[in-house]
Amino acid sequence: MEPWQEELIGLTAAALTTAAFVPQLIKILKTKETTGVSLTMYLVMFTGIVTWFIYGLLIESVAVIAANLVTGILQIGIIILKLKHR
Amino acid sequence: MEPWQEELIGLTAAALTTAAFVPQLIKILKTKETTGVSLTMYLVMFTGIVTWFIYGLLIESVAVIAANLVTGILQIGIIILKLKHR
Repeated sequence: MEPWQEELIGLTAAALTTAAFVPQLIKILKTKETTGVSLTMYLVMFTGIVTWFIYGLLIESVAVIAANLVTGILQIGIIILKLKHR
Repeated sequence: MEPWQEELIGLTAAALTTAAFVPQLIKILKTKETTGVSLTMYLVMFTGIVTWFIYGLLIESVAVIAANLVTGILQIGIIILKLKHR
């Protein structure tokens, strides 16, 4: 497999794990229901995403920086909604 | 910054984003409550994690393979519990 094909698979993976948070955010926006959603999960996850973002800056990877910037924004939204509708 | 220091930050990030799913899994196991938890999120996320795992195999990265193997197992647990207690 060519390196660009491998990178395409990596970018697809990043797009999927980033996009995954969109249906969760929409579900809470629609239902205002967060019972069952773990706040601890999102706080640990957000800390991890910030760490990935720093790693992306250090290794100068645009894909890592971009994916974690978008994921971080989505997670801030989920955390705010969880705190609002608890 | 030395390359090993950068990789240590990357591994910390991977550990955090993997460990984040543990409190969610424990919360559902304890409360059997999944209202508010988006099944679509976990299905898209699991597809992304499988893609990351394949990417890890292709680039021969033990960190990417290991992190996504553990995350994938945790997600299967959350998906099974969500389907059981919906």
